Amino acid sequence: MLKFVVSKAEIQEKISIASSSIGSRTVDPILQCLLFKPVNGHINIHATDLQTSVISTVKVGEYEGNEAFAVDADLIDDIVKNLPEDEVIFEYANGKLLVKSGKARYNLTTVLDVERFPIIETDESGIKFSIDTSILEEMLDRVSFCASSESAMRALNGVYWEVHGGFLRLVASDGYRLALAEQKLDIENEFDFIIALKSVKELGKLLSSTTEPTINITYDHSIVSFNAGDVTMIVRTVEETFPDYKRVLPKAFKTRVVLNVDDFAEALKRVMVIAKRGTEKVQLKISDDVMELSSQSPDYGEAVENIPVTKDGEDLIVNFNPKFLNEAIKHIDEKEMEFNFVDNLSPLQINPRNVEGYMYIVLPVRA
Amino acid sequence: MLKFVVSKAEIQEKISIASSSIGSRTVDPILQCLLFKPVNGHINIHATDLQTSVISTVKVGEYEGNEAFAVDADLIDDIVKNLPEDEVIFEYANGKLLVKSGKARYNLTTVLDVERFPIIETDESGIKFSIDTSILEEMLDRVSFCASSESAMRALNGVYWEVHGGFLRLVASDGYRLALAEQKLDIENEFDFIIALKSVKELGKLLSSTTEPTINITYDHSIVSFNAGDVTMIVRTVEETFPDYKRVLPKAFKTRVVLNVDDFAEALKRVMVIAKRGTEKVQLKISDDVMELSSQSPDYGEAVENIPVTKDGEDLIVNFNPKFLNEAIKHIDEKEMEFNFVDNLSPLQINPRNVEGYMYIVLPVRA
Repeated sequence: MLKFVVSKAEIQEKISIASSSIGSRTVDPILQCLLFKPVNGHINIHATDLQTSVISTVKVGEYEGNEAFAVDADLIDDIVKNLPEDEVIFEYANGKLLVKSGKARYNLTTVLDVERFPIIETDESGIKFSIDTSILEEMLDRVSFCASSESAMRALNGVYWEVHGGFLRLVASDGYRLALAEQKLDIENEFDFIIALKSVKELGKLLSSTTEPTINITYDHSIVSFNAGDVTMIVRTVEETFPDYKRVLPKAFKTRVVLNVDDFAEALKRVMVIAKRGTEKVQLKISDDVMELSSQSPDYGEAVENIPVTKDGEDLIVNFNPKFLNEAIKHIDEKEMEFNFVDNLSPLQINPRNVEGYMYIVLPVRA
Repeated sequence: MLKFVVSKAEIQEKISIASSSIGSRTVDPILQCLLFKPVNGHINIHATDLQTSVISTVKVGEYEGNEAFAVDADLIDDIVKNLPEDEVIFEYANGKLLVKSGKARYNLTTVLDVERFPIIETDESGIKFSIDTSILEEMLDRVSFCASSESAMRALNGVYWEVHGGFLRLVASDGYRLALAEQKLDIENEFDFIIALKSVKELGKLLSSTTEPTINITYDHSIVSFNAGDVTMIVRTVEETFPDYKRVLPKAFKTRVVLNVDDFAEALKRVMVIAKRGTEKVQLKISDDVMELSSQSPDYGEAVENIPVTKDGEDLIVNFNPKFLNEAIKHIDEKEMEFNFVDNLSPLQINPRNVEGYMYIVLPVRA
């Protein structure tokens, strides 16, 4: 038996956060469930897809009974968000869960073998560090779109975390482009790990929904846990080695172009209208203080436009997949950015002007 | 040769309206195009999927040349909406279309055999009548969701228009439910026709986008045209006979229930959480002045809720597909509605309380 009364807003939020870690294609029905488990005067909601686990603590008053129960996550989420009143009563007994609010009542089937629910234990012995929630959210947003979602190299299907020299550096790459963001941290240990893209997305949801200003992270080799007040996310790291990304960072630039981010974004959007119907290629022709963007399609014709830039170094003609340029510059928060070129076959480095801390590398394509 | 200057807002709007009648799965590439054709000092844009044709007249200043051209609708729509400046120049010559705005320029391939573009001629000899744009829009919105999108009976895959006794009546049904809306008109002729659902949707877009207060309709048997100022839509009617819908309109009600629309909608939403995971069935149990809504799912459990109602006549237990009830009551704009029952096997009539002009008929399902 377990009985508690909770506010609709509180239970809705905690169910929603936990549900985000439920896999969409789980074979075992118990993995589609949320486990409600009373512990030390709280009710904890557990959810897991075996790779990522979430434990969210629900604020309830007194509760009666001490039995855990597991109920379909989608179902209880759907029920709770439509309830008519703010007071919600949960009553679990004999395998049946009664949910009541106002005149609405649900009598729900629960999972029988609740002890099968996989609870991943956190080890308190790992390396601990903290980071501002908003900074970590921004860093992940700046890099994770460059991770691959389908690479045969499992290491690329995630975000690489490197703690080194008092910095946290996040790196993601799909082999054609790379994103890097870094932040000074108060930590002396040096270690690194990879978190799979799916876990990164769930972490992103946690970061955007929490009101906690700081995330406390515990690293313990195969497991990293992220704590934000009432919610803890426990992630199994990807047991692979991330490629030596420093090798692809370009050096010895021969052409540096300073340009307005919006000007370039707008012109690129217009040549992409043709590029996406043709060669999926945009040509940048940098000559003195003008950059000409152009694109061709054998069936539909061509688009051309130029924008003013400030150039140091050699003139250059170089081709890119416009999607990769577009996604990179969308993540530049400054008014001006730099394009740093070696030549028309080497990776281009894109970074905000006069701002350190993040950059993008994009491989050209052949003409 | 054809050359004209036009404002971005004007050309964007007229291209967008015409494009809505382009089919998504056309085999003939010319049907994916818009035809730009100079006529009497205007440029007309034509689009058609052979069933529905749209002619929109573009306001341009003087134009040079007199040649028509056809260009891919999606492409020109995409281009125009992203242009940088309000002034847009179109220059067609020798099969090539140049589009210029600010620093952006497109050199586009056009269709060669432009004379193949099918222009449906309107006959000025039909029966003419007019209706307020907003009234027709509301009537179509109230009935068209009940039309079938896949019935083997082609007559049901559209909206039936019946002009009779000085009224326009619109009827749509998929065989399980029916919607009816009517409006007094200043017309003595009597006639009827069916317009296919796809054309109805395109007409809906025209009605919601136009600022014209009145729609002028011309009926000429196999063709009906709808004129709203600069835009004319010409529709081929469906050459089928609509079933005798008056036969299914229930009479001799034994139970009449008056209920609050929002109360019912909210309770229904909550029992649907279970119904959609189970039998797709909701039971209404009307007993004195209470209606109990309930639903079962063999896997997930059950939901039950009751709402206060005012009842005249016999108690009743009856089952429905909750989706059909939900879609009907979403279109009731009043605070209160009536459920008029004959018995638990006969169609239910749902209508707003004290308001004439539209109603829904829904067939029960067996328990």
